[in-house]
Amino acid sequence: MVNEAQHTCSASSSSKSDGGSSSGSESSKDSSRCSTPVLDADRHERLREKMRRRLDSGDRWFSLEFFPPRTANAAVNLISRFDRMAAGGPLFVDVTWHPAGDPASDKETSSMIIANTAVNYCGLETILHMTCCNQTRDDITANLQKAKRLGLKNIMALRGDPIGEEWEEEVDGFNYAVDLVKHIRNEFDDYFDVCVAGYPKGHPEAESYEADLRHLKEKVLAGADFIITQLFFRSETFLKFMKDCQAIGITCPIIPGIFPIQGYHSLRQLVKLSKLEVPQEIKDVIEPIKDNDAAIRNYGVELAVSMCRELLDSGMVHGLHFYTLNREVATTEVLKRLGMWNEDPRRPLPWAVSAHPKRRVEDVRPIFWASRPKSYIYRTQEWDDFPNGRWGNSSSPAFGELKDYYLFYLKSKSPREELLKMWGEELTGEESVFEVFTCYITGEPNKNGHKVTCMPWNDDPLATETNLLKEQLEKVNRRGILTINSQPNINGKPSTDPIVGWGPSGGYVFQKAYLEFFTSSEIVTALLKVLKKYELRVNYHIVNVKGQNITNAPDLQPNAVTWGIFPGREIIQPTVVDPVSFLSWKDEAFALWIEQWAKLYEEESPSRMIIQYIHDNYYLVNLVDNDFPLENCLWQVVDDTFELLN
Amino acid sequence: MVNEAQHTCSASSSSKSDGGSSSGSESSKDSSRCSTPVLDADRHERLREKMRRRLDSGDRWFSLEFFPPRTANAAVNLISRFDRMAAGGPLFVDVTWHPAGDPASDKETSSMIIANTAVNYCGLETILHMTCCNQTRDDITANLQKAKRLGLKNIMALRGDPIGEEWEEEVDGFNYAVDLVKHIRNEFDDYFDVCVAGYPKGHPEAESYEADLRHLKEKVLAGADFIITQLFFRSETFLKFMKDCQAIGITCPIIPGIFPIQGYHSLRQLVKLSKLEVPQEIKDVIEPIKDNDAAIRNYGVELAVSMCRELLDSGMVHGLHFYTLNREVATTEVLKRLGMWNEDPRRPLPWAVSAHPKRRVEDVRPIFWASRPKSYIYRTQEWDDFPNGRWGNSSSPAFGELKDYYLFYLKSKSPREELLKMWGEELTGEESVFEVFTCYITGEPNKNGHKVTCMPWNDDPLATETNLLKEQLEKVNRRGILTINSQPNINGKPSTDPIVGWGPSGGYVFQKAYLEFFTSSEIVTALLKVLKKYELRVNYHIVNVKGQNITNAPDLQPNAVTWGIFPGREIIQPTVVDPVSFLSWKDEAFALWIEQWAKLYEEESPSRMIIQYIHDNYYLVNLVDNDFPLENCLWQVVDDTFELLN
Repeated sequence: MVNEAQHTCSASSSSKSDGGSSSGSESSKDSSRCSTPVLDADRHERLREKMRRRLDSGDRWFSLEFFPPRTANAAVNLISRFDRMAAGGPLFVDVTWHPAGDPASDKETSSMIIANTAVNYCGLETILHMTCCNQTRDDITANLQKAKRLGLKNIMALRGDPIGEEWEEEVDGFNYAVDLVKHIRNEFDDYFDVCVAGYPKGHPEAESYEADLRHLKEKVLAGADFIITQLFFRSETFLKFMKDCQAIGITCPIIPGIFPIQGYHSLRQLVKLSKLEVPQEIKDVIEPIKDNDAAIRNYGVELAVSMCRELLDSGMVHGLHFYTLNREVATTEVLKRLGMWNEDPRRPLPWAVSAHPKRRVEDVRPIFWASRPKSYIYRTQEWDDFPNGRWGNSSSPAFGELKDYYLFYLKSKSPREELLKMWGEELTGEESVFEVFTCYITGEPNKNGHKVTCMPWNDDPLATETNLLKEQLEKVNRRGILTINSQPNINGKPSTDPIVGWGPSGGYVFQKAYLEFFTSSEIVTALLKVLKKYELRVNYHIVNVKGQNITNAPDLQPNAVTWGIFPGREIIQPTVVDPVSFLSWKDEAFALWIEQWAKLYEEESPSRMIIQYIHDNYYLVNLVDNDFPLENCLWQVVDDTFELLN
Repeated sequence: MVNEAQHTCSASSSSKSDGGSSSGSESSKDSSRCSTPVLDADRHERLREKMRRRLDSGDRWFSLEFFPPRTANAAVNLISRFDRMAAGGPLFVDVTWHPAGDPASDKETSSMIIANTAVNYCGLETILHMTCCNQTRDDITANLQKAKRLGLKNIMALRGDPIGEEWEEEVDGFNYAVDLVKHIRNEFDDYFDVCVAGYPKGHPEAESYEADLRHLKEKVLAGADFIITQLFFRSETFLKFMKDCQAIGITCPIIPGIFPIQGYHSLRQLVKLSKLEVPQEIKDVIEPIKDNDAAIRNYGVELAVSMCRELLDSGMVHGLHFYTLNREVATTEVLKRLGMWNEDPRRPLPWAVSAHPKRRVEDVRPIFWASRPKSYIYRTQEWDDFPNGRWGNSSSPAFGELKDYYLFYLKSKSPREELLKMWGEELTGEESVFEVFTCYITGEPNKNGHKVTCMPWNDDPLATETNLLKEQLEKVNRRGILTINSQPNINGKPSTDPIVGWGPSGGYVFQKAYLEFFTSSEIVTALLKVLKKYELRVNYHIVNVKGQNITNAPDLQPNAVTWGIFPGREIIQPTVVDPVSFLSWKDEAFALWIEQWAKLYEEESPSRMIIQYIHDNYYLVNLVDNDFPLENCLWQVVDDTFELLN
């Protein structure tokens, strides 16, 4: 599927999911038979199973650690970062627990909500950290229940750093991570995958390295599924630790925590917190360049790359865990140099899947939200069943209302001032709106010299594939056919096609041409005359803000507009034009005129009234050309319409 | 889908089902959203709705009346006739109620079982007659319950002819059809569509024509949905009757009963029973030729055609009901001359659907039973849900065992002597079995001069489409790859294609190449070596009678091998290769060697031992070429295998 802005945010939690080639699946017979054929393994397996599968297949993997940001704006940015870094194909991300930051609350900066956003809206397999600090046993149970409700399936069980200098005993709580692990297993059985921390140099408070190893083994015996280590500076530190663990019978995966040095101060702070000693050879390099951030980062990348290579070359390490400090560049660079950043991620489906367990069978969505997948997930979060195989099999699609257009994970990345520069400080008529749409399509600056890089319906620049349609899109937008979503027809391209491909390799993908736009009632009248001539070849839905609806769609049947045929699988049809959902999308699409655009201007200002006029009087139109093997006729439909108007 | 023998028995209850073009469907929102997109109307509507839709669209239709046969052999023949006449596209068939013939019993000649076979195994919309004769109120309720359980949805409510000369009052029963109608409505609410009889000349026992009309109105007021009339000899008789009905406020459909005269004696008998008078002008023609059956039938056809034309030309008649007397030629001839016989029936799905209400959403089946659809229906009759949209959505496919290979609706049309002529009075080795398969494919007579027109796995001659593969099939069968099912690959042919098309018009159909055969373990060994080279392009399942199973299919996923893309619809994928069902099919496919073939010979005879040897030692293999846009590679696979063996 191709949309006007989309692929940059096409997050996917897994790098390669053509799991079809593995002959024996770990998932049970029943679940594998009812699941999305493409995605079995990666959507159905729990994290520990995914690790196991990669260990068996010898595929290397990485994971990314983030901490909850301090401000709402930083949260918006972090979510964008999740989306961008998801493109590299992390096996999971984890979100730390900050006892001081109200970590279980519903604030957009809490650990819980950041983890919730990662799993549900960014489709990332996510581990939520949890510590024993400042929590009673009941608090912990309640927070775990909340995490479960939100779709989180993995917990990193930690004691946590002491608030003051020394650990103070928790009343009605736990004083050791092992107790937290036991509690999770007691209260939630096998629901969560549980991770614990390992200390390659021993925990600073432990009596000895050996004693700390024994504590680690206790945590594993209590039910931990795998271990992530504290950072370290030399590969031999980790490799020795790993051998020592194995020697005392720890057999679960142990994942090295990698800390690419990104700056002098962050290093010092971390070292202080973790009570680690920086080796002299590193200090010797860093001290002289301590004010040169770029130089330190380059050195840090270099150091991390060579340490990771040593770890991987040892044959004992398959996965690497990165302490990102919420930054992107250094970690991405290390992964790219290691060849572990997935440059060309295969998309399991043409849209970004959510990682909530409830949604693991979901494999059909209406095309309308293609550029607003987070809004779609938000509006369907209360559904108990998700369409699988066929949209029509789903229960009646009752969409939740989208009242708050300013939810942080739905919010535009651009601030008001920037939007005004793009969309016009002052509008002089409908034509100035046409101009904005046209500039968004062409990528040319507007008359004030600003590029239009987003629209209320598309928060990202035009997708590569829509570029293919650029010339025609420009022409029609200039004349008041204001396009917000489109895809070309495709008659069987390989599923590995870099632009339109998705799903397992060896398959073929197909699309029906789709065009969605706002336009005036004058154009609609002409369009309807033209459409008569196309009969059933073109299906259309035309609706205004009041819900007046004109269509030639048979009954209330959805129309499949994207589908794929794969070796040894059932057909997958991930995108449909559904007449019923279109009416829910209509509300959102019209509201975005007001919420995102009109409200940039003063009340009763001419600019605001122009947008309000369009909102009140234009129609939202979608067209599907059913004859996918022939040349797309939708441009001809539009041309005929303009000709009729002349 | 193309199979070795199939389309002649591809029964479908409706002539044209590209109902997609009608914009408003009568079915409810809910049911239409969850249904098979292609088949909404014709599979979901009740009979009275189908009539209404044809009235609205102006489409003419016909229906066929049959009586239960007297012997089991005649029942087998009648079922074949149902299949053949279904090809012409009747709106429904009806089966009369013979109080003397134990009509509600489980005998294969009972009214109930014949109607059950028509609806379930032949996919025909079916009306079961029921009379008040010899039945208490409780008997009637029990029989209606049984009819409902079997999937019958329509009852023709009659008083019935008196057993003796005059009607004798039924104790605890009903004496008038109107009471039966009321009873059906009281006990079964709106479940059944109820039909009643009209008498264009008045019922012979009625006080007067007018009194009889009033009785008819009472039956309609009591809940009858439509009327079928007694036969008549002049169109004006019916047209007057229809106007008289309308004049007293009967507004439901009134369908003329047409009786093509087929012989002197049958006419006399019918006239006697119905107490009708044959007009003098007809007698004048018939009497002189009363011993010339052909001449009478020709005259009868002529007479029926001209009377039907008058009825249709009146504009008052859209449907014609034929009293077939269980014969085929005259009725078919009349319908063909009227242009109402559907010469080229569009298939709603590539396989023959069942008309049981439980199965109305069914739109996916395993390919294995393609030539034995009745066996598939039999073995799945206990299912509560049928796969819709995706095979994997179905509950675990627990197939009923097929123990009785001699159920009359599954039975071969050919008697033992004929089978022996085709398959060999005496087999001399595996090669003589290869020879039988080869003769079936080529259509050439065997060495004793007999054509092989059926096989244990295919009761009909080779399908037209399989003819396309004839040359290759001949070659491989001659060498011991004993094919029982195959289809070529198709990369998007119009859904209206006369050979491979199905579904609504304006669509495209696709197939993956499929080949299924029995073969020796020696060939299997070579085949497996060859298949390695094809990797995921070719999926295979290889199994012997003991269930030893070799496959490269991912998990237990079904592989869609036939699918269609239609305007304004979701994808339909009616045929899959399902690894789980294959093991149920395997039992049946191997058993047919013994049940249908080996048992033709004496125990311990060499012929029987040869078949037994094949049964015990051969493998059943299926191959799918996933790369449907390329040239079918399965022949290459087989060639490579033979080459490896040389």
